[in-house]
Amino acid sequence: MPPPPTIAQQLAAKQREISIAEFFERNRQILGFDNPQRALLTTVKEAVDNGIDAAEEASILPELTIEISKESDDRLRVAVTDNGPGILRKEIPNVFGRLLYGSRFHSNRQARGQQGIGISAAVLYANLTTARPAKITCKVEEEEAAHVLELFLDTQKNLPRVTSEDVVLWDRPHGTRVELVLKARYVRGRQSPYEYLRGTAIVNPHARIVFVEPDGTRITFERASGELPPLPRETLPHPYGLELGELGYHLKASRRPTLGEFLAKDLQGVSARAVREVLEKAGLKASQKPSQVQGADQERLLAALHDVSLIAPSADCLSPIGPMLIKRGLRNVLGDLRPEFFAPPVSRPPKVRGGFPFMVEVGLVYGGALPADQPVQILRFANRVPLLFQQGACAITNAIATMDWRRYGLDQKGGSGIPGGPALLLVHVASTKIPFTSEAKEAVAEDPEIDKELTLALQAAARHLRTHLSRMSRRNFASDKFEIIQRILPKLAEKASHLVDRPVPDLTPVITRIMDVVNVETRVESEPSGVRVPVAITNYTPRARVLELFVELPPELLAAATFDPAPDGSEPALGRAWWTLPKLAPNGRTELATRFPAKTEVEGNDFDWYVAGIDESHVLGADPLPGDWDVRLPRTIVEAAEAADQESEPGETAGEEEVDYDAAEAGEPSGEDE
Amino acid sequence: MPPPPTIAQQLAAKQREISIAEFFERNRQILGFDNPQRALLTTVKEAVDNGIDAAEEASILPELTIEISKESDDRLRVAVTDNGPGILRKEIPNVFGRLLYGSRFHSNRQARGQQGIGISAAVLYANLTTARPAKITCKVEEEEAAHVLELFLDTQKNLPRVTSEDVVLWDRPHGTRVELVLKARYVRGRQSPYEYLRGTAIVNPHARIVFVEPDGTRITFERASGELPPLPRETLPHPYGLELGELGYHLKASRRPTLGEFLAKDLQGVSARAVREVLEKAGLKASQKPSQVQGADQERLLAALHDVSLIAPSADCLSPIGPMLIKRGLRNVLGDLRPEFFAPPVSRPPKVRGGFPFMVEVGLVYGGALPADQPVQILRFANRVPLLFQQGACAITNAIATMDWRRYGLDQKGGSGIPGGPALLLVHVASTKIPFTSEAKEAVAEDPEIDKELTLALQAAARHLRTHLSRMSRRNFASDKFEIIQRILPKLAEKASHLVDRPVPDLTPVITRIMDVVNVETRVESEPSGVRVPVAITNYTPRARVLELFVELPPELLAAATFDPAPDGSEPALGRAWWTLPKLAPNGRTELATRFPAKTEVEGNDFDWYVAGIDESHVLGADPLPGDWDVRLPRTIVEAAEAADQESEPGETAGEEEVDYDAAEAGEPSGEDE
Repeated sequence: MPPPPTIAQQLAAKQREISIAEFFERNRQILGFDNPQRALLTTVKEAVDNGIDAAEEASILPELTIEISKESDDRLRVAVTDNGPGILRKEIPNVFGRLLYGSRFHSNRQARGQQGIGISAAVLYANLTTARPAKITCKVEEEEAAHVLELFLDTQKNLPRVTSEDVVLWDRPHGTRVELVLKARYVRGRQSPYEYLRGTAIVNPHARIVFVEPDGTRITFERASGELPPLPRETLPHPYGLELGELGYHLKASRRPTLGEFLAKDLQGVSARAVREVLEKAGLKASQKPSQVQGADQERLLAALHDVSLIAPSADCLSPIGPMLIKRGLRNVLGDLRPEFFAPPVSRPPKVRGGFPFMVEVGLVYGGALPADQPVQILRFANRVPLLFQQGACAITNAIATMDWRRYGLDQKGGSGIPGGPALLLVHVASTKIPFTSEAKEAVAEDPEIDKELTLALQAAARHLRTHLSRMSRRNFASDKFEIIQRILPKLAEKASHLVDRPVPDLTPVITRIMDVVNVETRVESEPSGVRVPVAITNYTPRARVLELFVELPPELLAAATFDPAPDGSEPALGRAWWTLPKLAPNGRTELATRFPAKTEVEGNDFDWYVAGIDESHVLGADPLPGDWDVRLPRTIVEAAEAADQESEPGETAGEEEVDYDAAEAGEPSGEDE
Repeated sequence: MPPPPTIAQQLAAKQREISIAEFFERNRQILGFDNPQRALLTTVKEAVDNGIDAAEEASILPELTIEISKESDDRLRVAVTDNGPGILRKEIPNVFGRLLYGSRFHSNRQARGQQGIGISAAVLYANLTTARPAKITCKVEEEEAAHVLELFLDTQKNLPRVTSEDVVLWDRPHGTRVELVLKARYVRGRQSPYEYLRGTAIVNPHARIVFVEPDGTRITFERASGELPPLPRETLPHPYGLELGELGYHLKASRRPTLGEFLAKDLQGVSARAVREVLEKAGLKASQKPSQVQGADQERLLAALHDVSLIAPSADCLSPIGPMLIKRGLRNVLGDLRPEFFAPPVSRPPKVRGGFPFMVEVGLVYGGALPADQPVQILRFANRVPLLFQQGACAITNAIATMDWRRYGLDQKGGSGIPGGPALLLVHVASTKIPFTSEAKEAVAEDPEIDKELTLALQAAARHLRTHLSRMSRRNFASDKFEIIQRILPKLAEKASHLVDRPVPDLTPVITRIMDVVNVETRVESEPSGVRVPVAITNYTPRARVLELFVELPPELLAAATFDPAPDGSEPALGRAWWTLPKLAPNGRTELATRFPAKTEVEGNDFDWYVAGIDESHVLGADPLPGDWDVRLPRTIVEAAEAADQESEPGETAGEEEVDYDAAEAGEPSGEDE
């Protein structure tokens, strides 16, 4: 009789490999299938993300139909049809019935899907909860008919099992349709397919999305743009942030004959000069075979790559939404809430983490009918996909919560946490590799590089908000003063005149002297022939003024505008133009006429007016020129202004000569900006 | 020349399988390796969890040494040694160098590790960041020497690659040592290895843990209990919550010859009667082969299993911490903070989700030096493992944040969010399968069943808190009153006597009549010969009283106590004892002496005193007997009390006869309990 097994032997007998599908079957919450409501959303999300990715890759304007219908009490049928290029018959089973199988994992460019898990996980969940196969219909352009397959995912093998197959005619040139019956619950509202599709439409204005709800309601998110965003280019890994193991992997996998060629051609950003510097620092020869660089050589090579200055990573592989579409998207989503302020959207320059480029975009709106007594709304996006769950676990939320928003004019208990106020933040992180906290891709993981960019972008947006709020409070203060003076002074004068029995004097000069402001007023007038934006500048100060007026507009609006008089200078790329205004006597008024073609989408908020030649406390409706404008005031203007001042009130000029335009933003909270 | 490939062909050419190791290499944040600080913690955690699991499985009291030392600027060496049974040579490479390989995935019992990912992920991270192999030393009892292997994890194949091997003598009978060099950062404080090990010590008082920090500091968490917790038993899946796909899997995998045997022997909780009922309801025959039950038959079988009443799942497969150790653990961690109140820890009965049993335990402490102006501290545990990250994404946090704590006496803005106040909550979820939000196992995913149990457990703890707080406020009110009366009344009497020129009268009866309370006062006096806890009961009411006094103590304290006089009855298992006190005349006093052996850990908080025979508004320092005590007052006592009352003040007795002890907890907030 053999001896009884020892404990170590008993334990060893239980050791075995687990298939990735078994793992996820038991841990489906990791994939976003915690409960019937979330499972439905995740299923829709995976199918829609794949559909848009496929269409874009084939340079097709995406068009998707999502139909959800009721099968029984706790079962729904989900069918998602896209107009992508379709999938070859031989690939269908693996794409839909095998986890970790996909085409985008190794491609170094921004995509919605990447991991080859999503849609197969939905198939797995459907199989598991209803024992019904997934039904896939695919047609590629070069074939006459479509393939229809029914399949299961065999969890123990992580392989597809096709249970039926057919060929049918399908009245479209190409496309894919996924049909699943799953245990699910339909809701509308927060964290619903509707919210997800609306969010998708916001940041993918080139997609047309038709959504049919279980009760038959049909909602269409029409295309807001007929232009495909530029297809992100596949790029090579960038050495910044590359780690030893990854470098080793690339060296081993390289087909280049020499290390020199590997550096120049398998990595991004390494110029010929940098190749020489790197090799010299690392003490390595250009002629070595890449795969022979090992151990300590690898370590020195990596240190040298991190030490030498390289070309910044290309952003071609990224597909940012862009300021214009962020603004348009926000305008869409906010509709009736009519916020009083749209901050110029912030697009940070691309950065690199772990060899993967990424960038952050932020949009901020304020006021209007947004609720003032609640936390600010946060719309999170990663690679143009809305993130609806796990807000509390997301680096985006964390970056917002760790900023002191009180400095920028929002409520915030103790200077941390989600701020309160009538504001909405849209934050988009785009990257060839987003570090999600889980396979369900619902939250961005903490990462020092991303955190830094998020904070910088949020701060930039917040500064716009602060400028707006202080402008508003100055404006409100000045106009309150204006109103009081205009109402009370005449009454005082009347009474006084009556008492001394004299005629009531003309009060205009007195009012002007008390007000002591130059007022800049912008109106927007839409007419069939075009949009007019007259800007009236009135000098309610007791002296003559020679002023420079500056405008900042979204560049494409500036390009569409005609001004009368024509600007004295402009920077079209930045959307800036400026004028030296004719000398304005006390109570003098001048008007600048701006015109746009009919139907241009333009509003008062699009114009940021700045004035130079006068202290900011004497301006209403415009701001002092920010210090970062690279426009030098011609000496003559300053002199003219001085002369004008001297002409009327020589004694009061001194203070204004000292105005330091570069210090206009000096109120910046210190220590947190770049 | 062949035609150029179509788009569908181009895309198909890129399709490929991704190894799970490649996937995690790119998504290491999912495994808890986001950054050097967290990577260190995760590495320590995985090695320690494995070490304790292994020792417990072999019924060995765990003893672990964790050494962290500095290798270079950004590299640390981590070595974790356990006294488990060791691992057979042939299994070492797979256990440490292959993801999704393990012994506990299919075992239906509570364990720390389960997925076969953790330690291999640490090896992968170390390989990747420093290109250094993992060094594993293992000795099993039956072999003379230990095996030492150095190995890498080949990410493309997800297979181990052993690079060196040796056999050495190791001066221990059995055990495992893992040594890794990784890019890491050492911190102490929040989310540190120290915090993790301290948390582990709290809920694993049977483990001895030695921790050596990089600066050489040696910290030992000594064993607080020499008893191994009972090893959780492996159990069969329970049908409640089982889904179609899982049932199908079990049917197919079954080796039972008939469906009847499958139901009775492959599932848990299905009695012979239930087997008959299920088969009848489903219209299936007991003699069928399990694997032949398919399609609609499966659906009917599942519906019948969910419909028929089954035996509740066994909790043998779980290893709760238990009220006693929760209290001891909290006392350890809180030390100098000396909370004024330890709520009796709550252990909910086990429940089932998706066929997997789970249970929730909650400990709550309040007051003392805990900070009053901050959010309550939350200690989260899953299967006896501290959860340090992702607090915001955790179902435990969410259950706390969605309860209205204002009803229970804590601050909470708007009735949701983490409450504020001098309190600490310990929450433990134990299950054969914890639904973690990610592979890093740092947060419990939302699940309706778990949420419900969490809420019920938290509410039970919160009710204890509310009772305590209202007791304290009554007590404070009464003692304030006491103090005022004793200070002011004599002065008034003196003044009045002086005015009317009469001697100052004896005020005691008057004070007594105004106070109208029985005072119960507990002192703890430590002496070399033992600990004395005298309890003085003074009748400051104007009538004679016959009272019953009850005490509740941790059972092991009750067992150690000697009382004088001896109790009239006791329930040792519940830690309860009671006395009928001698009749107390107005101003009468009696003392109950309690003694414990020298060095017994006992404090005033350990005693809960209750009194029967008097309305609660007339008691200070004790509470009315809760309704759930199964102690019936002998009729004679009540009668004696009545008689005593009649003796002194016959007119005032009526109100006290109506005291309803069962209604003592009637202040319950309605609508949120079971």
